[in-house]
Amino acid sequence: MNTLITNALVIPMTKEGYTIQGNIGINGKEIVFVGQTPASFHPDRVIDANGSIVMPALVNAHTHLAMELMRNYKDTEPNLMAWLSQIWPIEAKLNDEDILWASRLGVCELIQSGCTLFNDMYFNEHMTARAANEGGIRASIGLTLFGDIDDTRKRLAEKPKNCAPEVEKSNGRIKLAVAPHAIYTCTEVTYRYAHDWAKEHAAVLHTHLSETKGEVDDCVKAHGQTPLDYLDGMGYFDDTKHLLAHCVHLTDSEISRLSQFDAAVATNPTSNCKLASGVAPLGKLGKAGVKLCIGTDGSSSNNNQNLFEEMHVASLVSTVSTMDITSLPPYRVLEMATKNGADALGFPQIGTIQPGKEADLIIVDIHKPHLTPLNDPFSALVYAAQASDVDTVFCQGEMVMEHRHILGLDLEETMRKTNERWEDIKRR
Amino acid sequence: MNTLITNALVIPMTKEGYTIQGNIGINGKEIVFVGQTPASFHPDRVIDANGSIVMPALVNAHTHLAMELMRNYKDTEPNLMAWLSQIWPIEAKLNDEDILWASRLGVCELIQSGCTLFNDMYFNEHMTARAANEGGIRASIGLTLFGDIDDTRKRLAEKPKNCAPEVEKSNGRIKLAVAPHAIYTCTEVTYRYAHDWAKEHAAVLHTHLSETKGEVDDCVKAHGQTPLDYLDGMGYFDDTKHLLAHCVHLTDSEISRLSQFDAAVATNPTSNCKLASGVAPLGKLGKAGVKLCIGTDGSSSNNNQNLFEEMHVASLVSTVSTMDITSLPPYRVLEMATKNGADALGFPQIGTIQPGKEADLIIVDIHKPHLTPLNDPFSALVYAAQASDVDTVFCQGEMVMEHRHILGLDLEETMRKTNERWEDIKRR
Repeated sequence: MNTLITNALVIPMTKEGYTIQGNIGINGKEIVFVGQTPASFHPDRVIDANGSIVMPALVNAHTHLAMELMRNYKDTEPNLMAWLSQIWPIEAKLNDEDILWASRLGVCELIQSGCTLFNDMYFNEHMTARAANEGGIRASIGLTLFGDIDDTRKRLAEKPKNCAPEVEKSNGRIKLAVAPHAIYTCTEVTYRYAHDWAKEHAAVLHTHLSETKGEVDDCVKAHGQTPLDYLDGMGYFDDTKHLLAHCVHLTDSEISRLSQFDAAVATNPTSNCKLASGVAPLGKLGKAGVKLCIGTDGSSSNNNQNLFEEMHVASLVSTVSTMDITSLPPYRVLEMATKNGADALGFPQIGTIQPGKEADLIIVDIHKPHLTPLNDPFSALVYAAQASDVDTVFCQGEMVMEHRHILGLDLEETMRKTNERWEDIKRR
Repeated sequence: MNTLITNALVIPMTKEGYTIQGNIGINGKEIVFVGQTPASFHPDRVIDANGSIVMPALVNAHTHLAMELMRNYKDTEPNLMAWLSQIWPIEAKLNDEDILWASRLGVCELIQSGCTLFNDMYFNEHMTARAANEGGIRASIGLTLFGDIDDTRKRLAEKPKNCAPEVEKSNGRIKLAVAPHAIYTCTEVTYRYAHDWAKEHAAVLHTHLSETKGEVDDCVKAHGQTPLDYLDGMGYFDDTKHLLAHCVHLTDSEISRLSQFDAAVATNPTSNCKLASGVAPLGKLGKAGVKLCIGTDGSSSNNNQNLFEEMHVASLVSTVSTMDITSLPPYRVLEMATKNGADALGFPQIGTIQPGKEADLIIVDIHKPHLTPLNDPFSALVYAAQASDVDTVFCQGEMVMEHRHILGLDLEETMRKTNERWEDIKRR
């Protein structure tokens, strides 16, 4: 199918400050032109984007999607451990169906906030992959590892098989990553095994790193090294591609070293603020040349999957923590949430709007009082726009949301079933 | 007219953690019951709020509403002075009509984000008052003072007269405040004159205080005192009611003194982060017993009038800056944005939902994926909800927005005219 989007203010994210007023042509899954419509292009469908910004769809570089269930749940406990002690008994009760409905809800929420690719770390992964396929969006599904080598071997024998049908069905939209949870929940031999598996299968490695000061202190006590040094020492970064979540507590020398690895950092500013973990050194990481991405973390520590809100918070918190207005300007924030995330997760075919790329893009309605006057569109998107301004979403050339209506999943049924299951889980 | 709102999850904001599942009766402008509908109540209109939270309307305790015009305008300048040097030449060109249309736009934006009372500080004040009346909402209109005593005398002779017709028309919804801009733009004699005028007219005094470290340093250099001491020394706080905006840079002894004045603090976390002013000590202020309110500041430093976003940022920034999860829990944030703001601005007839209060309330649609499951409604409102979830707004018993449709102003015309005027202003 040929789709023509007309009259758009296009933010291609191909170079700083660059916008195009014009049209976008999509042939099947591919963007074929941006700007003037060539005479040879015959659209089957025309979408008038007058009064709208069209930009690349957003990329959520770190989440635990099925934690939708625990949204706003006992999250005013006085500290992280008190809160986790409320969460863990719930997680122990979750089954495939719970994860499926929670993931479906998460996919709906992601789509409604303009995201078509998420990087997940949780369990019952094939259910989350299935929800992504049903919604028609992309996912980097982390094969999530906890514990010792026996457990890890078992997980990496089973999980890829469970996920294989969804990967096959996805037309390249779903990729498997390997996700050892964290250095405080996985042994060294688990990390080594994960590394070797990822190298063999050319998979991204996804882990939590240096999220809290406690994690760093404990690591130094146990291993005589900070978390990054500890992982580096076991060859974890050799010949592999990495997505490191959080990275709140890094030394300057760690930042400098990070820039030499094939490693991107996914910042999660809302979660880091809410859980009093701290503020990631985004300005320093950026200056050192580390690729920065952005994620929401799970909804139990955020409490939603809203990347517009996340971009906003990232910019504000970075500015005030460095007292430097230039530390993270709007264009850089938008890069984090689009092409940087796509590249880091191994989806270079998306992340910008230009001929040859696959069409993952969003139509943002700027005919709103809070976006009037528009003035600088980059500032507008980071500081003033809302997820609810996303009107229509395309993934791989297919419309997955039209005028706020989600096409691949039944939103009403999903909300009802998720609520029912959550009530049931609490009773189990 | 008698209005009955049924099946609501009511958050009355009368005590911590308290909710009521039931109905709300409104007779004319007054709430007459909450809970069960008495047999004697005969509604002219019934609104089914099933699947909704009903809570007090929000109060924006510090803004410059007509700065809507400069939204997203050159706001990536490297520092505050460079940015102000872009703003001031624009402001010098603004006339009554510009302020009127920008204020109308601001009123639309406030209503769409659930706010029915705003505390303004700008010029051509009668135009902003007129826009508030047209939208059917409340305003504390600051008679804004800059400069020396001649200027101040002139302003306080003219401005109340200009505003009088709108105050009369407002049925108590509009009150005049006195707003000496800041200690670095007003002389001491201006502050003294403002104080005496406010005392005579029982008006709230509204000023910027200790927004930046530079302001504090300059004050110490010029007067040998910090800004609060300087104002206190001239009797500014004697026998008057105060709204102090920002208060980012306060010493512990200033915080303790503040708690003895009839003074509330309006925090503006987005603006303070974005302009790298710093983080207000909300935890300490709260512990000292200072009444805390919240405002958006003008849209040129925010870049919108969205109190849901502002509550979210306040909580996150306060938590991470104190590294204390309990420093500003959701219920306290909601108090700041409702009854604290109402009380501080001299509108004790609103701010909670209980019999005898005037009906300023909002119906928040919680049948949304990002609010499913709901779990704790207080966490949900502060961390997960969006301004766009506000479905219907009442002010003084009258509906001012119904299912997102603004009733008192023509939103389409307002957006069009504001854009036209802004283009014209830039050409002048």
